[in-house]
Formats: sequence, structure tokens, C-alpha cells
Amino acid sequence: MKSFLQPESVAVVGASSDPRKGGYAIVSNLKEKFSDRLYPVNPGSREVCGLPCFRDVTDLPEPVELAIIFVPSESVPDVLEGCASKGIRRVMIQSAGFAETGKRGLELQNRCKQIAEKANMRLWGPNCMGIVNGCSGMVASFIRTDAWQGRLRCGDVSLIVQSGMLSAGFLVQIMNEGYFGVSKACSIGNRCDVNECDLLEYFRDDPETGVVAMYLESVSDAARFRKAITALNKPVLLLKGGTTSRGADAARSHTASLAQDSALAEGFFRQIGIHRAFDFLELADLTKAVTLWKGKTGGKGVGVVTFSGASATVATDHLIQQGMDVPFLSEQCKSALAQIFPSWAEVENPVDLWPAIERTGRMSAYRTALELIINESCVDAIFVHAYVDSTILAPLSEALEVLQQTGKAAALWVIGDANAIKMLRTRVEAMKIPLFTEIVRAVRAISLLAG
Amino acid sequence: MKSFLQPESVAVVGASSDPRKGGYAIVSNLKEKFSDRLYPVNPGSREVCGLPCFRDVTDLPEPVELAIIFVPSESVPDVLEGCASKGIRRVMIQSAGFAETGKRGLELQNRCKQIAEKANMRLWGPNCMGIVNGCSGMVASFIRTDAWQGRLRCGDVSLIVQSGMLSAGFLVQIMNEGYFGVSKACSIGNRCDVNECDLLEYFRDDPETGVVAMYLESVSDAARFRKAITALNKPVLLLKGGTTSRGADAARSHTASLAQDSALAEGFFRQIGIHRAFDFLELADLTKAVTLWKGKTGGKGVGVVTFSGASATVATDHLIQQGMDVPFLSEQCKSALAQIFPSWAEVENPVDLWPAIERTGRMSAYRTALELIINESCVDAIFVHAYVDSTILAPLSEALEVLQQTGKAAALWVIGDANAIKMLRTRVEAMKIPLFTEIVRAVRAISLLAG
Repeated sequence: MKSFLQPESVAVVGASSDPRKGGYAIVSNLKEKFSDRLYPVNPGSREVCGLPCFRDVTDLPEPVELAIIFVPSESVPDVLEGCASKGIRRVMIQSAGFAETGKRGLELQNRCKQIAEKANMRLWGPNCMGIVNGCSGMVASFIRTDAWQGRLRCGDVSLIVQSGMLSAGFLVQIMNEGYFGVSKACSIGNRCDVNECDLLEYFRDDPETGVVAMYLESVSDAARFRKAITALNKPVLLLKGGTTSRGADAARSHTASLAQDSALAEGFFRQIGIHRAFDFLELADLTKAVTLWKGKTGGKGVGVVTFSGASATVATDHLIQQGMDVPFLSEQCKSALAQIFPSWAEVENPVDLWPAIERTGRMSAYRTALELIINESCVDAIFVHAYVDSTILAPLSEALEVLQQTGKAAALWVIGDANAIKMLRTRVEAMKIPLFTEIVRAVRAISLLAG
Repeated sequence: MKSFLQPESVAVVGASSDPRKGGYAIVSNLKEKFSDRLYPVNPGSREVCGLPCFRDVTDLPEPVELAIIFVPSESVPDVLEGCASKGIRRVMIQSAGFAETGKRGLELQNRCKQIAEKANMRLWGPNCMGIVNGCSGMVASFIRTDAWQGRLRCGDVSLIVQSGMLSAGFLVQIMNEGYFGVSKACSIGNRCDVNECDLLEYFRDDPETGVVAMYLESVSDAARFRKAITALNKPVLLLKGGTTSRGADAARSHTASLAQDSALAEGFFRQIGIHRAFDFLELADLTKAVTLWKGKTGGKGVGVVTFSGASATVATDHLIQQGMDVPFLSEQCKSALAQIFPSWAEVENPVDLWPAIERTGRMSAYRTALELIINESCVDAIFVHAYVDSTILAPLSEALEVLQQTGKAAALWVIGDANAIKMLRTRVEAMKIPLFTEIVRAVRAISLLAG
């Protein structure tokens, strides 16, 4: 896999000198990383992105570590033959028009596979968007250069996705919104050879990968998958496309993934300890939480501290519906809490902080409540809610610092001003407290730690 | 109710000259609307916000149409006696510390109620954040002036909420993000007298109210509520707090709302045709959709047109799980669609547009697909997905115009760049197509129209 993920020389077959084309973007993206040993191939061009262009792979000055193919599907077998004769052993087919299109496409894909097997060549794809290596800075994909330039952030999350959107549009959103840094984002498409198991096995020993998040439309090989997940021994999150019969129909024409019995699949994923997400932003939010919470513990008992009574009520409803407990506090804790509340207030978990905020101010109210509640033995994790405008950044950040002294996980759900929320996010996530704008996400994230 | 919602003269008892206090904010907010007949009352001040301050309500130059009370709860009965003797008939108690705090508070609240009844006075609250009238510009609440100034937008949505956060923080978010314009936002608190039924009955004949969205922790009077909803004959959305037993505990200490059997309540709400939301942003998103879709029709059959295969797959999963259908297209429609796709593509609902976009460009691909699919008889509503950056604003807006020629509802789910999404939102929502950043919301919204 290393030759795919961190090659030292690359050829791009189907390179284009037209900046609107994907075959231009691939070269332009790779040029950001490669100062030499990057070779555009196209019989009709003499130069692409300022690099000399080769007529054919057989004309290349070296048998490159990786060849990327982006030509119409019918021409791919010929290119593969060329690669084979040149001694190239790793080839990524980004072109579409294979098994996902029906019988004829499947035959074409099988022909490619045969050529590769005969030449002892590994194939990535077809019908994929390639690889983004956030740590090395290699973008081997037809994603637009200005969409990622200056935004790529190295982190310990590796992605395995059967989707172009996920690795391009979605990756851009993850980078823009600062969800998490990316180690390797791998779009594997129809995975006629290299599949999620190859990558899971590689990520086991990859020190740059701490968490794996996946979008799959089916599992290639359940036995090997189970073994790879167990051996990986790192948190894994999965969004599974095609959990309904009509969704599975769509998946078949997307990545030629065959429907699996969804009830069976649910049990299988649960059994091997995979965290499930049910949409794209949820996958991003839960992955962020798992990454930030490494080393933290959770459990069923959730302490809830909110800015208002309505949010305490609704957060509690959601936690209970998700199978969590909102345990009653000890008498000792309640009498200590009462100190910051007006005399009329009856304090209990969930804690509606509003009366205490009016009495002692935001910083002191949040800080005191959080410190008391996190130390309750019935409380395994903390759910904090705040209304955010620019005036709360300092007091809330200061109050949340008390949560750094504990090993219990904390999640922050906020409403309010979008700009202020963005600023707060940076501050609190540096404290390993994930911030969520959706109540359901904060609740789902906390529930992941309850096992 | 008109005297509460559009009073011509107002007294603020508990007015403060300290800009950090709620008693200052109430006067400062009302001053934006009232050039005269606004009277601060506080024995300790001579002036508040540049207005002469009165020692006592009995000293006021007129029996104001509405008195707002914001003094500690124990002092409220005395103030009420003063209002009664002055001949004031509408009083709003924004102070907390009543039934929501337990037995003693309940006694205090009952005393207030007795005083009011004897004086033929209507009481609003206690323990509430008052009223924001988006159309008249009256903000009768202790919300900070700079939080709403210049952001209030008149619209036809009226809100009834048992929450301060909802009417303040949440309202600010709704205004900032441009969800919808607000007619009347009413925070009714413990509703010892005026309750949701009074308002529902008023909104029936209020030409400025087209849709009602509510956050309630219980229903005051089920029989009257049912009658009011039926008579209202306008769409109603409800977020119900306290649907679980622990959530109901929290509601009791929040607004003294008593738990009702949640299974019974679900059946009741469904029976009288109320749309349910399960969290705050969902309430905002669904309300927006219902408002934009007035006059549009929907149903179970959903046409799905997406930017990518993964989003087609996952959107279909969500639609099916929500009880919708993603029907197969007619042969006629499919052959027409095939014209914009490469020859290898098998086209079916959900339509993964990506191959067509590569072939004919975004505008033409979206426009052709939408026009063909909206005219299918099996399709009752359209779910559109797009990846958004600044380059798609023009082509997508232009393509979506074809949906204006139809009476079928369309929802747009997007991922991508936050700024571009904001710009796109303005354009498409002017076309009565609600934009959602959460796939689940777009799906839930469409399902509301399926009955």
C-alpha cells in the first residue's frame, strides 16, 4: 500500500493541458508535492502544467512507483498493458465506466484485473477519486487545486470511502470547518483489487493513523474485514450506504456494491465494535469526537449542564432515548450546587444553570457546576450546553478548563451566533471538548463511549 | 390578546439604569418602538434610558395598556395590587421564582392569580421572556438590545414557547441565519393564566400569522387545545419537551409543567394534524419548509437528483426509513434522461447526476433531469442534492428555476463551502425551495407533506 499512499514517482495517463479538465487537476495537484519524477502522459500534448508530456507510458524515463489512469474506460486495458510492459506495479484507475455501469462495464473491469494479475500489478479503483495524503501533502485526485490548497491539515484520521463526493466535496467541508486533520483519505471506488481490508491492514502499523472513518456500500470480504478490524485496534467509524433495499439499488449502480442483508450487517458491525454513523456530517462529527476523546472514558451516566430549562429538558429527552441515564445527584453535590443558585431553586441533574448565571455570572456558574458534577461517581460523561455570542468566549472557555483535570469525556452543544461559535470551537476543541451545533450529534457522540 | 401583542402604552416595573441588568434591556428594547407612553417604574431611579422613572405604578400618568413586571418574585403580589388599583388590565410577569421552584413558589403564583382574577386582570407568565413582535418592531423582553437590533424581520411565522432560550438565543439564531421572518414570538413561561390556547385562538384571525411553531412542555387543556388547533386551520409545528420521564422531571422544575403520558400525547398530536419536531434546529428548519411550501403539494413518491452516487444512496436510505418511496421512473423518462448521460450509464431514480455533469455541465444536467423528473406522475416531491462552492451559484440557481413551474414541493440538501451556501440559500429560498445542510432535515421536511 505504501507505493499507493506515498509513491516517490508518479505518471498521470490522461493528463490534460485544459485547466477545466480533471486530467489537468491531477497533475496540478501532484505538482504541489513533487518537484521531479512526476510525468504527464498524453499523445496529444507536449507540455502539461509546465512539465514535459510523454506520448505513452512505455516512453517514460523510469518504471514509476505509481501510475494514475484518467482516460475513457475503453482505453484503460491498453494503458494497463503498457504499464505492465514498462514494469509498473501500482496502478490507480480514476476513470469511471466499469462494473458500476452494468454487464459490459463489468467485463471491461475483469479484463483490467486479468492484465494486472498476470503482470503482478496491484490495481486501485476503478471509478474513484484517488488519495489525499494530508500529512505528506500529496493530492492524487482530480479535485480542484484551489479547493484544497492551503486548507490541508495533517491529523490522525484516515478515511476509506466508496465515493468521490466524500473524498472531494466532503473533504473540502471537513477542512473548511476544521473538523479534524486528515492522515490519508482514500477513495477506493469499485475496488476491483485494492479494497478496504488492504487499507485497514496497512493502517494497523501506520503511526500516522489513530482513527479510521469509512463510507462503504458493502463489505468486500466479511471474514477478512472482521480480522482486519480486530487487528487494527484503533477506533473505527462507519457510514454504510445501502441499508435499505432501494438504497442498495442505488449503491449497485454507484460502485457495483452488492446488497447484503441489512439486519445481518447491523449485528456484524456491532459485534466487531464499529461505531456507526447514519449520515455524512454525523460521520464527521462523531469522528471528531472520537479523535478528541482519545484517553478519555465515558459510560451511561451523563451529567447535563445547560444554559436554559428548555435545553435541559430536550437534551435529557434525547439522552434517554439514546439509552443513556441522567442520574440523580448526591445530596452533598446538590447542597454545594445550591450555593450558586437563588434560594428558591431546586437543583438536580439536568442542571438548568440560568438562575445561577443570573446570580453569580456565567464563568462562576458554569465553573462551579461543572467541577461539582464531574466529580460525582454516578456521572461518567458531561453534556454542556451554552448560548454563544462573542461575550461568552472568555468566561465559557475559562470555566471549561476544569474539565481538563478529569479523564471523563465532555461534549459541548451550542446555539447562537455562527462567527462566535467558530471562534469558540477552536478554543474548546484544543481542550479536547468537541463542540456540536446539533444536539443529536452531541448525544450520539456521548453514547459511543457507553459501549 | 391584542393588548399584550400590540399595546399602545407600557409600564416596566423593575426598570433599571444599569445596562447590565434585564430591567434596563426591557426599557431599552421598548424604546426602539415607543416614542412616548413608555414608563419605567423603580423607586430607586429618577431616569432610565433617558425616560423619567416613576416611584410606583400608582404614580403613572395613565392606566397603561400593558404593565411588565421584572422584580424579585416576593415583591410581585404588591406590584399587582398597585396595577389593580391603577386600573391596569394586562400584566406580564417576566420574573422567575414561582411554581417552577416548588411548593412555596406555587403558593406565590396562586396569590398573584387571585389578585388578577379579582381585578379582572389577565396575567402573562410568570417566568417568561415576553414577546417579540417582528412586524410591529416591539420587543417586550429582557433580551439584549444589540442581539436583535437590525436583525428583526417580519414574516408570517408566530412562535409560542415555554422557554426563555427559545425566544431569546434561539430567536437570535433564527434571525442571524435567516430561517424565516417572525410575526409574534411569545414566551409564555408558567402560563398561570394566558396559555397557548389563548394565543392559538388569537392567531386564527391574525392576518400576520400564517404558520405557528411551538415549544411546549405540556398542554394546558387538551380539549380546548384540540379545538383551537382545528379552528386555526394553519400549519402547526411542535417541539414537545419532556417526552421521557427524566425529561418531564426537568420540565417540571423549568415551567412547572406536569408530565403527561407520552404515548397518549403522541397519538393526540398526530390525530389533530400537528407536525412534530424533535429538536430546536429541526423545529426551525421544518417551520421554514412549511412556510416556503405554502400552496405546494407533496406525497410519498420522491424524485431524488444528486451530485454524487454516495449522496444518492444515503438520501434514499433516509427517505425509505422515513416511510417515503423512491419510485422507479417511466421508460419514457429514462430514455429522455439517457440523452444527457454517457452511453454506459444506467439511469434510474435516485439519479446520480455526476456522469451527466461531466458530460453536459452542471446547469444543463440539473435542469434537464429536474424538468423530466418533476413531470413524472409517480413523483410527488423532489429531493435535490448539490455540492456548493462559489462557482455553482449561478448554474444551480438557473437550473432550479424549472421547479417554479410546478406545484410539487422541492427540497435542496447541500454540502460544501459555508459562505457559498449562505449565498445560495438566499437565491433558492426566494424560489420557495428550502435549503438544508442536514440530510435528515430535508427528508423529514418532505415527509411532512406526505401526511
